[in-house]
Amino acid sequence: MKKIDPRRVISGLFPILHWSRGYDARTAVGDLIAGVTVALTLIPQSIAYASLAGFEPQYGLYASLTGGIIYALLGTCPQINIGPTALLSLLTFTYTSGTNPDFAVLLCFIAGIIQLIAGVCQLGFLVEFVSLPVVSGFTSAAAITIASSQIKGLLGLKFSAETFVGTWKGVFGHIQDTRLPDTLLSLACCIVLLGMKALKDIRIKAAQDEKDNRSAVVLQRTLWFAGVARNAVVVVVAAVLAFFIHQDRNDPLILTGNITPGLPTPNAPPFSTSVGNTTFGAGDMFSHLGSGLLVVPIVGIISNVAIAKAFARGRTLDATQEIVALGVCNVLGAFFRSFPVNGSFTRSAVSDASGVKSPAAGFYTSLIVLLTLALLTPYFYFIPRAALAAVIICAVLHMVDIAIIKNLWKTSRLDLIPLFGTFICCLALGIEVGLICGVLVDVLLLLYYHSRPPLDVQFVDNNDSPPHYAIHPVGGLHFAGAETVRNKLSSLRSPRNKINRPVTLTVVPGNPNGGISFVENGDAINDNGRTEDTQVANSSNVLVVHCDALYRMDYTFLQSIKMLVTEWSRTGRVIWCNAKPVVKTQLDSVIQDPIYCDSDQLRRFLAGVSVVNDPAAIGDTQL
Amino acid sequence: MKKIDPRRVISGLFPILHWSRGYDARTAVGDLIAGVTVALTLIPQSIAYASLAGFEPQYGLYASLTGGIIYALLGTCPQINIGPTALLSLLTFTYTSGTNPDFAVLLCFIAGIIQLIAGVCQLGFLVEFVSLPVVSGFTSAAAITIASSQIKGLLGLKFSAETFVGTWKGVFGHIQDTRLPDTLLSLACCIVLLGMKALKDIRIKAAQDEKDNRSAVVLQRTLWFAGVARNAVVVVVAAVLAFFIHQDRNDPLILTGNITPGLPTPNAPPFSTSVGNTTFGAGDMFSHLGSGLLVVPIVGIISNVAIAKAFARGRTLDATQEIVALGVCNVLGAFFRSFPVNGSFTRSAVSDASGVKSPAAGFYTSLIVLLTLALLTPYFYFIPRAALAAVIICAVLHMVDIAIIKNLWKTSRLDLIPLFGTFICCLALGIEVGLICGVLVDVLLLLYYHSRPPLDVQFVDNNDSPPHYAIHPVGGLHFAGAETVRNKLSSLRSPRNKINRPVTLTVVPGNPNGGISFVENGDAINDNGRTEDTQVANSSNVLVVHCDALYRMDYTFLQSIKMLVTEWSRTGRVIWCNAKPVVKTQLDSVIQDPIYCDSDQLRRFLAGVSVVNDPAAIGDTQL
Repeated sequence: MKKIDPRRVISGLFPILHWSRGYDARTAVGDLIAGVTVALTLIPQSIAYASLAGFEPQYGLYASLTGGIIYALLGTCPQINIGPTALLSLLTFTYTSGTNPDFAVLLCFIAGIIQLIAGVCQLGFLVEFVSLPVVSGFTSAAAITIASSQIKGLLGLKFSAETFVGTWKGVFGHIQDTRLPDTLLSLACCIVLLGMKALKDIRIKAAQDEKDNRSAVVLQRTLWFAGVARNAVVVVVAAVLAFFIHQDRNDPLILTGNITPGLPTPNAPPFSTSVGNTTFGAGDMFSHLGSGLLVVPIVGIISNVAIAKAFARGRTLDATQEIVALGVCNVLGAFFRSFPVNGSFTRSAVSDASGVKSPAAGFYTSLIVLLTLALLTPYFYFIPRAALAAVIICAVLHMVDIAIIKNLWKTSRLDLIPLFGTFICCLALGIEVGLICGVLVDVLLLLYYHSRPPLDVQFVDNNDSPPHYAIHPVGGLHFAGAETVRNKLSSLRSPRNKINRPVTLTVVPGNPNGGISFVENGDAINDNGRTEDTQVANSSNVLVVHCDALYRMDYTFLQSIKMLVTEWSRTGRVIWCNAKPVVKTQLDSVIQDPIYCDSDQLRRFLAGVSVVNDPAAIGDTQL
Repeated sequence: MKKIDPRRVISGLFPILHWSRGYDARTAVGDLIAGVTVALTLIPQSIAYASLAGFEPQYGLYASLTGGIIYALLGTCPQINIGPTALLSLLTFTYTSGTNPDFAVLLCFIAGIIQLIAGVCQLGFLVEFVSLPVVSGFTSAAAITIASSQIKGLLGLKFSAETFVGTWKGVFGHIQDTRLPDTLLSLACCIVLLGMKALKDIRIKAAQDEKDNRSAVVLQRTLWFAGVARNAVVVVVAAVLAFFIHQDRNDPLILTGNITPGLPTPNAPPFSTSVGNTTFGAGDMFSHLGSGLLVVPIVGIISNVAIAKAFARGRTLDATQEIVALGVCNVLGAFFRSFPVNGSFTRSAVSDASGVKSPAAGFYTSLIVLLTLALLTPYFYFIPRAALAAVIICAVLHMVDIAIIKNLWKTSRLDLIPLFGTFICCLALGIEVGLICGVLVDVLLLLYYHSRPPLDVQFVDNNDSPPHYAIHPVGGLHFAGAETVRNKLSSLRSPRNKINRPVTLTVVPGNPNGGISFVENGDAINDNGRTEDTQVANSSNVLVVHCDALYRMDYTFLQSIKMLVTEWSRTGRVIWCNAKPVVKTQLDSVIQDPIYCDSDQLRRFLAGVSVVNDPAAIGDTQL
């Protein structure tokens, strides 16, 4: 056992102790710029995601408050920004719709505890069992579900629906209630947002003149910043617009309305609550949240590990520490009335592009959120719902992963099945059920691969050796492939158009050659009909199994092998070439006297055909 | 497309058309003896299994009536005898307990239809996804559950329980009600049954005298026949005993009691019925049978295919035809009030040992059952329940497969997990839930194997080549193993105690050598510190991937490979040796300019280290 050094454990748990040693002014400035820039994306997004999750806007800010600080202490990846995300907001809505924020806070707390347990027990490896096509199908379907859920905000409709199908039914059922001002505003917001997003990518040509060049750089930076701050700009402009319109007329736009101002009161997570006249105990709340108590933390872990991996850029990633950090963010967040949070890919990318140096950037982001909560909440009244809907839709559009279809077509077409399986199940049955279906499709695909193990069957017939079959099984062979392999090899036993020269196989235990020899007898035995009676092996019924790449077989496969060898042994022989010790042990336990050899021995036997042609040798033939 | 010959299709569907051509008197005598012998086992078993399934004894005979005849027409395996079995009787009891035989008949009908569909759609291959350890664990647990359910019969207790746990609770709860006469009778029956079973295996020494020899043979046959007919003997003797005891005293033994005499009235399967005052429609009946509608046909198929395989003795088995035959037996059986049936291993073994020649033996067995139903049912009144319990217990004891534990320990220890997993789940959660759990355990085990793909990592350092790493991936590599492989190879990047000679890797596209050369530069570059600046590959960072046995990768694995190659390419190179075209296509789509070569090229490069040492060659080094 390794000796545990308490200092190493603590510095492992708090990576800040490690990276803060070299923290200087230059790093701090980089982090400050990145932190503030991220806040400009985070604040409008969090208000929007709160409405996506079905709560008042301040809950989005509550959820943004603690993540940055805690991740700065525990996280390892500078780019990651923990806070509300579209995916978890949608899941929170799915599991808490029709209740109150207490349910979401409890969900956040329990999800965090489950993530902590997963981290401490090093269960992070389980995430590897979710393949990329499933993750991609899930994310795309979630994005489309989220975008669909915002269509009603876009058109100013009012109805409640939870699923993708239900949402579209609702939209078409209420299409006659479309409100023109909201629709116009949301369309305008979408156009501005997409336009400003494009600004980021404009490349200003470097001028030859140095002064021109400096102004080109400034212009480039300004464009990029405008692109990054687009959500904040759109929300503020829309709110100001709504403020002036509402002075003149009554209710032309659906607004956010009155919200609770100020900071959240720190409090233990609620284990009982009341919705309307109904009081829910802890048990009632748990049973209402149901599978969400597992799905939310798992989806959080998957997303976070995926983002951390993307930004690790090849460095080894401490997935366990990432999961622990996320768990603590959720557990402590619940004390500040946060709903479930995780890392956001968009914000992490913004942070990266802003030149973040260390996880400390999260401190600055959280500070700005704190100021916003303390000072700006009264002004949230005028934020139009349509603008928030536009922010959400434009944020999730890039999550729809079309490129993977082309990639899969080029690299691995069968992987299109889990991709589309997950995608369709997510849209048809809800995204959490769809994720589970996707994992099942993956498992079925593995079973399919297992049921068709690669097995190069060659009929070798050259001048160096008597004709024989050679196979090259690879890897591990398990129950799912047992029948396929047996059928394939059984069908070899009546070869058509094969040369069936009878061959005597001499098996002499203790022979320095390893005990076996092929003896090709020409037509002599064939003509006088002794082939059957003397049980001379038909040359094409000699099967050489090259075991170089065979690692193990399971019991079911071994039983199948046993039957196969019994069949072949009636008129031929099975020879095991280069079997590893573990495979030999397995074969010994099911087959009587298996014939082993290595490549050299096999080559010598095969080459020695014309040499060992002495009738005396045929005399001690054992078959 | 293959041309369909209607004659071949029909002769495929009715194998009798094939084997009846050579049917002669000798074959017929063999079949007659086997058929009658099997009937002597079948009749007492079917009466006992009817009570196991919770019905009156005649239902067991109804279930035995049609199977033999139909299988003779459609079956391919002479040994198999279709009729009630312990396993399906237990399942029938699980799904129909507390109702009436109509439910069992409907279950039989639907199970048959599902089996027919599975046969016609060639879904038989699905059976291959149930591994032998799972089947063994399931069978053993079923045998123990069945034996436990008979303990109450053995002791003369009366209570109702369905599960293994419930049965034992009931036994201990009612132990004070134990009836001495029943207990004594059942113990006596068990001892006689086990003793008579042992008779079969006694081997009479062949005498030298011919006359003695003949009598020895006769004695041997008599002993064997007594062993085979043991169930019939015990039931008849116990019934006669009970008849005489009941003349004198009142109710010393629990008897079978009054039953409906005679043949069943052929009738369509019941789609509605009434139990007590409750009337059940088709929908109610279906929902009551629930998962049984799937579990019963699947278990039937698994058992039948397993038995057919055991007796096929290496001949290729037409699994589809076997499943179709079983389906028809159940569908038509339901018209004669049969509960679900399948092949019995015990009876098939008896049939085999009696020298059966063709499936026609089933005709004779069914004929005897018909006679029994027509003439003997009135006498069933006196069959003691204790005797039936003894018959069942002694019949299922051999189903408990202890030997497999030793075999698995010797051949494949990980397979003990699905064995015990299935066994324990079957006992704790019920045998049908346990079977599903077992299949899940199997799938998890496959995932585990997939997550640890075999990957021989070698550090090659001999005089022929610069030191480098070599790996030999095999088979197909999928998402579950992606992270393991990447971690394993990433950890190689800082080798301890390895020779780190810097090596220049020259990549010249279009070079007749395939474009790559290793150039070992000795200490020259190392000393002047150019190692880092000129990006000379560190020799131990050259990774040769031998792809001879690599067949495919999935998208997730390819993405992992992409990251890995990016990492290695910073200070080294990854070389793909002997990649198959399909693997090359996959690699091309994710890696920029992968370096391919074949074994010959690689050998020449590795051997050419000291030759290609020209500074000009180093000049056009590309890394």
